[in-house]
Amino acid sequence: MKPVIVVHGGAGAILQKYAEGYRSGVKRAALRGYDILRQGGDAITAVEEAVVVLEDDPHFNAGHGSVLNEEGEVEMDAIIMDGKDLSSGAVSAVRCIANPIKLARLVMEKTDHMLLTGNGAALFAKSQGIPEIPGEKLISERSRERWKKNLLSSSTQKGFGTVGAVAVDSQGNVASATSTGGITNKMVGRVGDTACIGSGGYADNNSGAVSTTGHGESIMKVTLARLILHYMEQGMSVEEAADAGLNYMKTRVDDSGGVIVVNSAGEWTAKFSTNQMSWAAIKDDNLNCGIYLGENEIIPISENL
Amino acid sequence: MKPVIVVHGGAGAILQKYAEGYRSGVKRAALRGYDILRQGGDAITAVEEAVVVLEDDPHFNAGHGSVLNEEGEVEMDAIIMDGKDLSSGAVSAVRCIANPIKLARLVMEKTDHMLLTGNGAALFAKSQGIPEIPGEKLISERSRERWKKNLLSSSTQKGFGTVGAVAVDSQGNVASATSTGGITNKMVGRVGDTACIGSGGYADNNSGAVSTTGHGESIMKVTLARLILHYMEQGMSVEEAADAGLNYMKTRVDDSGGVIVVNSAGEWTAKFSTNQMSWAAIKDDNLNCGIYLGENEIIPISENL
Repeated sequence: MKPVIVVHGGAGAILQKYAEGYRSGVKRAALRGYDILRQGGDAITAVEEAVVVLEDDPHFNAGHGSVLNEEGEVEMDAIIMDGKDLSSGAVSAVRCIANPIKLARLVMEKTDHMLLTGNGAALFAKSQGIPEIPGEKLISERSRERWKKNLLSSSTQKGFGTVGAVAVDSQGNVASATSTGGITNKMVGRVGDTACIGSGGYADNNSGAVSTTGHGESIMKVTLARLILHYMEQGMSVEEAADAGLNYMKTRVDDSGGVIVVNSAGEWTAKFSTNQMSWAAIKDDNLNCGIYLGENEIIPISENL
Repeated sequence: MKPVIVVHGGAGAILQKYAEGYRSGVKRAALRGYDILRQGGDAITAVEEAVVVLEDDPHFNAGHGSVLNEEGEVEMDAIIMDGKDLSSGAVSAVRCIANPIKLARLVMEKTDHMLLTGNGAALFAKSQGIPEIPGEKLISERSRERWKKNLLSSSTQKGFGTVGAVAVDSQGNVASATSTGGITNKMVGRVGDTACIGSGGYADNNSGAVSTTGHGESIMKVTLARLILHYMEQGMSVEEAADAGLNYMKTRVDDSGGVIVVNSAGEWTAKFSTNQMSWAAIKDDNLNCGIYLGENEIIPISENL
């Protein structure tokens, strides 16, 4: 079985001056995940490590670079899921850690639970030796500027985005990981789709893996990740199911978003109904990448490594 | 359209000495919800008020009577959803309020968000004038005894349970509400299925409404509420879909649970794969009620009001 990884850096409007940063970020994340898969690593580790690359890159709304809540603080959500046995771990409204996706994986592997929130998640992080960092360290200049602008203007910029990865490994196991800082100027304690299994992500070897991005509340209303896998269970291809899921969200709750999908046969897609979504995918040693509708740059990965 | 309400008081082992308390609690909750529906009230208010009755009754693991976490404190989750427009509100890991389901409804109606957690939820509760009560007031003697026993023994009693209600009103709108104290001796900050849309509950006028109960982590793995509605969308009856959902959970993650379901035509069911589940339902002025497998006591409600 040939391994595949697909990553996204969030759906929504991407300013041209940042486009190259987004492009290079999603490429690096995909290469990181693919490297793990090519060495025989498992899908769950590949998606975790790919998301860590995106959390560490301040271009993206996750980890360092997360948007700020109404109090000017960073609160993050993340989820990871293993399609082998439907096990999953998630955290919500966590502060002062560099990589929420790593904490989500520890919830999955070291506890009897699947979702830890706020102070409880912080206590658990401490017990696992995850260093607490100053909240300031997660804040990029751009996040702070956007937050200030929203405080001053009556019409808030609905800045959002998420990062995510899905993969299938050489054993045919699928996995999904999603991480986010949420919505700009959100209320303290607001949790979005990312922490909610079936909304921000889902993975099942019997069908495939999905990671979603967009306005969290709309994604939750239609439990978008699980919905797309239901469509695949009913016989749709990954492309048809992704389109059907996004169309359903448009029809039922009048909103747009983006998704990446892979099935256990290694078929994949990256689809969005927003204007842009940064994404990258690697299969058969070819890296595919795009931001704008219809864009698909294809590069043999020998040129990238 | 004749209104219908179904409520549950949690799946799991019910000791005989408490059986009458459970029975009378679910009856009172169903009657409260039905009274609202009969006067032309909407489904969302009926499920909210039915759940308030169960939260206030110390027999049930929600509100007063919630199980305690590893620190001996009460942390509660709740969700409410309106099938008319898929709007929903939820809270997770909230403390020191009497009725989490009321706070969930305020999240739905007064914010742009769908899920508030921990301290953020507490700040919002305060802003809405919801009184903070001492955490002690939520603790029943039985909850404290069970917590102590678990601290002392190596084999923890897996006490869990949830309360919930689903309804269809005279306009054909469906709604769902679920509330819980979670799992006995859970980690601080543990959030279960109840706060996660599609797992603990879901409502959609196009199909129906579901509230689930059982081991939260297993319910989350299969997003049980949404799964049952998918089955109904594919043509199954409410009974078939409830059975198929519980069977799927048994097959995929080897666990049991309980569900209540109603569709917009007013067909309803209460099903469980655990030994017991307390439930009550009212349709056509007849109250149905049971705890044990196959039990269905039917009483004209004139005798109850």
